[in-house]
Amino acid sequence: MTAVSALPRIIVEPLVRTALLEDFGRGGDLTTEAIVPREARARATLTARQSGVVAGLDLAHLAFTLVEPRIQMEQQRPDGSPVKAGDVIATLGGPACGLLTAERTALNFLCHLSGIASATASIVDAIKGHRASIVCTRKTMPGLRAIQKYAVRVGGGSNHRYGLDDAMLIKDNHVTIAGGIRPALERARARVGHMVKIEIEVDTLGQLEEALAVGVDAVLLDNMAPDMLAKAVRMVDGRALTEASGRITPATAPAIAATNVDLISIGWLTHSSTTLDIGLDFET
Amino acid sequence: MTAVSALPRIIVEPLVRTALLEDFGRGGDLTTEAIVPREARARATLTARQSGVVAGLDLAHLAFTLVEPRIQMEQQRPDGSPVKAGDVIATLGGPACGLLTAERTALNFLCHLSGIASATASIVDAIKGHRASIVCTRKTMPGLRAIQKYAVRVGGGSNHRYGLDDAMLIKDNHVTIAGGIRPALERARARVGHMVKIEIEVDTLGQLEEALAVGVDAVLLDNMAPDMLAKAVRMVDGRALTEASGRITPATAPAIAATNVDLISIGWLTHSSTTLDIGLDFET
Amino acid sequence: MTAVSALPRIIVEPLVRTALLEDFGRGGDLTTEAIVPREARARATLTARQSGVVAGLDLAHLAFTLVEPRIQMEQQRPDGSPVKAGDVIATLGGPACGLLTAERTALNFLCHLSGIASATASIVDAIKGHRASIVCTRKTMPGLRAIQKYAVRVGGGSNHRYGLDDAMLIKDNHVTIAGGIRPALERARARVGHMVKIEIEVDTLGQLEEALAVGVDAVLLDNMAPDMLAKAVRMVDGRALTEASGRITPATAPAIAATNVDLISIGWLTHSSTTLDIGLDFET
Amino acid sequence: MTAVSALPRIIVEPLVRTALLEDFGRGGDLTTEAIVPREARARATLTARQSGVVAGLDLAHLAFTLVEPRIQMEQQRPDGSPVKAGDVIATLGGPACGLLTAERTALNFLCHLSGIASATASIVDAIKGHRASIVCTRKTMPGLRAIQKYAVRVGGGSNHRYGLDDAMLIKDNHVTIAGGIRPALERARARVGHMVKIEIEVDTLGQLEEALAVGVDAVLLDNMAPDMLAKAVRMVDGRALTEASGRITPATAPAIAATNVDLISIGWLTHSSTTLDIGLDFET
Amino acid sequence: MTAVSALPRIIVEPLVRTALLEDFGRGGDLTTEAIVPREARARATLTARQSGVVAGLDLAHLAFTLVEPRIQMEQQRPDGSPVKAGDVIATLGGPACGLLTAERTALNFLCHLSGIASATASIVDAIKGHRASIVCTRKTMPGLRAIQKYAVRVGGGSNHRYGLDDAMLIKDNHVTIAGGIRPALERARARVGHMVKIEIEVDTLGQLEEALAVGVDAVLLDNMAPDMLAKAVRMVDGRALTEASGRITPATAPAIAATNVDLISIGWLTHSSTTLDIGLDFET
Amino acid sequence: MTAVSALPRIIVEPLVRTALLEDFGRGGDLTTEAIVPREARARATLTARQSGVVAGLDLAHLAFTLVEPRIQMEQQRPDGSPVKAGDVIATLGGPACGLLTAERTALNFLCHLSGIASATASIVDAIKGHRASIVCTRKTMPGLRAIQKYAVRVGGGSNHRYGLDDAMLIKDNHVTIAGGIRPALERARARVGHMVKIEIEVDTLGQLEEALAVGVDAVLLDNMAPDMLAKAVRMVDGRALTEASGRITPATAPAIAATNVDLISIGWLTHSSTTLDIGLDFET
Repeated sequence: MTAVSALPRIIVEPLVRTALLEDFGRGGDLTTEAIVPREARARATLTARQSGVVAGLDLAHLAFTLVEPRIQMEQQRPDGSPVKAGDVIATLGGPACGLLTAERTALNFLCHLSGIASATASIVDAIKGHRASIVCTRKTMPGLRAIQKYAVRVGGGSNHRYGLDDAMLIKDNHVTIAGGIRPALERARARVGHMVKIEIEVDTLGQLEEALAVGVDAVLLDNMAPDMLAKAVRMVDGRALTEASGRITPATAPAIAATNVDLISIGWLTHSSTTLDIGLDFET
Repeated sequence: MTAVSALPRIIVEPLVRTALLEDFGRGGDLTTEAIVPREARARATLTARQSGVVAGLDLAHLAFTLVEPRIQMEQQRPDGSPVKAGDVIATLGGPACGLLTAERTALNFLCHLSGIASATASIVDAIKGHRASIVCTRKTMPGLRAIQKYAVRVGGGSNHRYGLDDAMLIKDNHVTIAGGIRPALERARARVGHMVKIEIEVDTLGQLEEALAVGVDAVLLDNMAPDMLAKAVRMVDGRALTEASGRITPATAPAIAATNVDLISIGWLTHSSTTLDIGLDFET
Repeated sequence: MTAVSALPRIIVEPLVRTALLEDFGRGGDLTTEAIVPREARARATLTARQSGVVAGLDLAHLAFTLVEPRIQMEQQRPDGSPVKAGDVIATLGGPACGLLTAERTALNFLCHLSGIASATASIVDAIKGHRASIVCTRKTMPGLRAIQKYAVRVGGGSNHRYGLDDAMLIKDNHVTIAGGIRPALERARARVGHMVKIEIEVDTLGQLEEALAVGVDAVLLDNMAPDMLAKAVRMVDGRALTEASGRITPATAPAIAATNVDLISIGWLTHSSTTLDIGLDFET
Repeated sequence: MTAVSALPRIIVEPLVRTALLEDFGRGGDLTTEAIVPREARARATLTARQSGVVAGLDLAHLAFTLVEPRIQMEQQRPDGSPVKAGDVIATLGGPACGLLTAERTALNFLCHLSGIASATASIVDAIKGHRASIVCTRKTMPGLRAIQKYAVRVGGGSNHRYGLDDAMLIKDNHVTIAGGIRPALERARARVGHMVKIEIEVDTLGQLEEALAVGVDAVLLDNMAPDMLAKAVRMVDGRALTEASGRITPATAPAIAATNVDLISIGWLTHSSTTLDIGLDFET
Repeated sequence: MTAVSALPRIIVEPLVRTALLEDFGRGGDLTTEAIVPREARARATLTARQSGVVAGLDLAHLAFTLVEPRIQMEQQRPDGSPVKAGDVIATLGGPACGLLTAERTALNFLCHLSGIASATASIVDAIKGHRASIVCTRKTMPGLRAIQKYAVRVGGGSNHRYGLDDAMLIKDNHVTIAGGIRPALERARARVGHMVKIEIEVDTLGQLEEALAVGVDAVLLDNMAPDMLAKAVRMVDGRALTEASGRITPATAPAIAATNVDLISIGWLTHSSTTLDIGLDFET
Repeated sequence: MTAVSALPRIIVEPLVRTALLEDFGRGGDLTTEAIVPREARARATLTARQSGVVAGLDLAHLAFTLVEPRIQMEQQRPDGSPVKAGDVIATLGGPACGLLTAERTALNFLCHLSGIASATASIVDAIKGHRASIVCTRKTMPGLRAIQKYAVRVGGGSNHRYGLDDAMLIKDNHVTIAGGIRPALERARARVGHMVKIEIEVDTLGQLEEALAVGVDAVLLDNMAPDMLAKAVRMVDGRALTEASGRITPATAPAIAATNVDLISIGWLTHSSTTLDIGLDFET
């Protein structure tokens, strides 16, 4: 079982309602209403069709019960559970109409988030034994950031800042406009609140030295080869957190992690991961 | 110029606002505000970093101008344009703060939708010469269905139904509960509005025969091998539209299309496509 | 009892909340709160004051329970039931304050929707024995389309398209701009999705012939006298659905239906029907 | 020109957006986008097809410009203008797509509100010369109260309270629960704010006397025949405003007004009036 | 116990959700989730830390249960109760996480509204024995008017108009533009609905005389010294309600009240009152 | 001119709309519409009636222009400017109706935020020369946190965390449930993201020592007398930021600041500050 915090219902309910309404349109489920008697009851299972890590069961649950409050769902493998093809993740029972009508919305949440959790878990696994944490970025799907970042945590990753307002991340363009690492960092420090951390992107070891001289909470080492990265980490020597980024894959991650970097940030976890295939099977 | 209809602003503006607010949080862009002088101006380009088809420029444009109305954007390669790495898609000019603050949100829309359009285009291209159209499904990201389906159209695909209320799609579970193809179809036809089409999923040629006997607008031929699919298409002989589905990839699509099927539906276009890499480069 | 599908709560709840808030304003029910003790309980009945067909009980129910969850409502004559003056439609019991406060909002939904259902039923009745279905249009009250179309179904009618995006209806102005029936239809067919039907408005038999030559799902025969309409229906001869429209009333409907047309569309069902008089009577 | 206040845009814009989105659904105007070239321009007129009073032009205008900001509209006969069949109410010019797409939503507002204004005006006209004002009630369409009450004002009527919180109206059920006219009124007066008026419904002259003895701003004389009404008005003798109500029609209104009553309230103006027929004619 | 009406949940729930979401941001309560086991249970009390009058317990209750439905709250001293330091206002029990997460939002409502109720009560107390009521103004916190006005009622005050649309208040600038008291009042009376009261601000006894000559429901006597106020009240002699305003404090209120004025309006009750200090103490 | 970042319009516009709608209700400004001719133009000034610091001019500006886009506003003393009674803050010109209708909403924002900025500035001034920054807390008005925290920055203060999700603040109750400072901090550190800071509340020097031993970004020294605070600051010796809290006033702040503490947090800045008196004076 995962130690990850649940998503507060007050945050996710509007999202689930939006998704349902997007599917219902103005007329609701024409097919089910025409074919399935209202009193029909059914039982079904959410079953994994491939290996991975489950995430998003509470959202799926909410989708079913917002459509039909009488649906019961029992979670066999709660969020964070590793599953393999054929594993029953949850069992459902209740009015057949509700199950059929909410099915797609529930699965859209569940398969997408489980896909992210699974991708995260496989990278986390690939670098096991190293100090590095896997973190996600702000390259998220519009409107889905809160739940995508949750899925990364479920997969064993950690979260970078949530948005523009909870931490400072000084990127190359900021540095250019400020006229260098030092003035950029100095302006940031002059304005930063005491509970806000500052990270800065550096492209060269020279820039890194300059950043460390001014002082900073973390350094983003962008697109550096493992050799240079290792050199940078040694140069930092604990004076700041070190973050590697730039198209890192399960294949390249171990070499990156071996540099002893603190963090490996990976945008594709949230912008390009594939869904985990999970099906809703009705008992006959 | 693309022949695809534009997304109405009244539909997409709430989505872009949601995405911006998700990034702004309660405090806005701490970094840019601390470092970049308000009067600083900049010019930048949206540049492709890989080959593909552009989609979502209007949403990116809206993201920039909702943050800063004085930003000007000129579209060099409008939605539907094929691009290759290095191609300039659009040029931007205006207050540097606004450009930096809106950058991520604009790119999140643009890269995601261009990814879908590119994936669609590559499948469309793979089956060129065949009658089949590529269509997407309801396996979409929560809240993003309208814009994802737009991106499929931009890529040369066509849209399946938008949701539960604009067409009937009778799936295997409906058939089971109804007690067979015939009763399911008869109930559907008894209730269907005159402007609504009916499609039914069939798994065997026997079911197909039964469906055609009752009459239906389209048949979903799920997970059939090309041989069987070809047989099914011949059996239908124009009496209904034929749709093939089931994990079809660019590699398997030509064989499917060669069966003379009318439609090939592909869920992963919207649930698992990867982003098209596009960057915002500041002129220095 | 009607076979019509219920309105999903997820669609109608926001509407009922809006209606209640519109009545509550910023201060709630000044009168009831000043006069009626909070602990007072009451029983009341929703009683028909004229003949008609009931529609909207679930919305009325929701209005009462959103104001006061302890209110119990029992539906004696559910949606679709024919009633005459004096018939008890439902009985209510619970805190008197809640009953009085929600009364007007509940009745506004119930009387309006029952009015539409009743008007629909009387036209449906007037053409009994003919093949024609009664359908409504997009001439609806702003914000109320989903529930008005539901009321038409409750009254025995059928629904035309829900909006601009679930079917194509090519009107005279489209034809004019396209330069004729043929180019209009050809452009539509080139762009239409496979699950979307196309209907075209024709004013003359020449246009009709042209439309049938290209092929179309339905033809809208606007403002034709019964003679011409009959001729048109014979000319179509099953190659498309035929829809008559143009200020059709219960008095003129039988002659229209006698032409063997498939559909009779009537705008005033939703834009100008009168309410069914239903009262809330407190037991004393 | 009417002396009636304009509807603040901040109030009506959300309503117009809701109506447009209800019509656009997820996909927008399939027909127009397929058939009408984006660069096509058109001119059109809003023309009355029957006699009445115009109301709602600003909402129609907003519908057009929210869809297409480049549409220009010139109001020939602004809200409050009497029109007869054939009169041009407004002229429109701009992109043909926008005109066609927004047409139905604009007309739905305009025809409905003009219908209310026209019905109001005809009753106002029927009682000209008498002191009575025509007022509307809370029997309004859910979500449309603000604009329906505006239309009543445009037609020459006046508004009753807007909702439950801006005035007290003690109805028969309040009186019953309170145990009589006197206790009901006394409780109301003990709690009422100094800027809030109190009206009470009385069914008999005895109740009326009791109400006047306690003191009240207005009395609602429900369903009284003209004779009794005249007697009641004389009994009141200016000590309170007098309001007649109960299924009053243009035919019965003069006799009611002749009783010298101050106000005649008519529910059907807002719940059952028919639309004024107005068409959008494209210039060819 | 107070005789004041409860705030309808349908009005306040959106406000409480907004407040919670403002505190939760995108990630929820990082601290509690990291430290407090989900199964931990706790008991706590809401305890007054200073003397005053309680207001807002239902909002606090709602904040707790929207975060965690299993939290139980028992109100020892419901809204309107006078409390002194150390008094237990309510006891709470349930999951510790929910109690800690909702604490601040619940207290923000409760302390603010109790502050307003307490300030109101102390002024009401200061003028006990006089006829004057204490009323609040439209000088409220954006978004909080409904609940602030409720708190004034809980404290024993009364409400002035809720906004611009439920009563007319003619201020000095209206008078100036109209060209005097008489034309301003005449225009107002020509347009006012029969359930709407009119009040006018007068600065001099001459203006007062003019207003009374035309007739008005209430006069606002702005910034008058007690002597002049007393003279004004005598001049009015019951022909209108008299309202004193202008920086009135508990210290100056008795002298104002002694003039026999009907109403004393005080803006700072809602725009500048201090919170009542109430703490949430966990039982250990 | 202040160096403080502007509030993004995308964040504040919904707030201003809410405030306007709360004042407009369903009917808009009855008084102004009845009395002031639509074509009347006016000029007015926003003038300080007491000394302080201006904050919120952009919100006031937005209130005016959302009501009437033709209103022009020129800011003489932008946010952050110190003003004294009589100083003109901004001049306004345009349609008189719009100025009168938006006046109260604009002032409600401006006076409240200027009140917070002024209170902040006076404390900042009182401790000038010391290292301490003044910071606000989460004790804010529901719905107003973003703009209240902005006002604190305008007044020269700094912001504590925005909510529960952008930093960890371990309070006494967390410590109690965790079973001590060490386990609480250790659990927090095990779960905290790399861009999130941790602060812990300590009540004794023993607890402080324990916290420093584990390591923490900041310590909240609650309700300590200056002597003990000074001792604590010395004990910390730069290993963490030190924050003093507990009913600190302008009078007690200097002694607190003299302890060399880094931060002084003051809840009443946002929950109990009084408005700055600013008036809208029409030119005659």
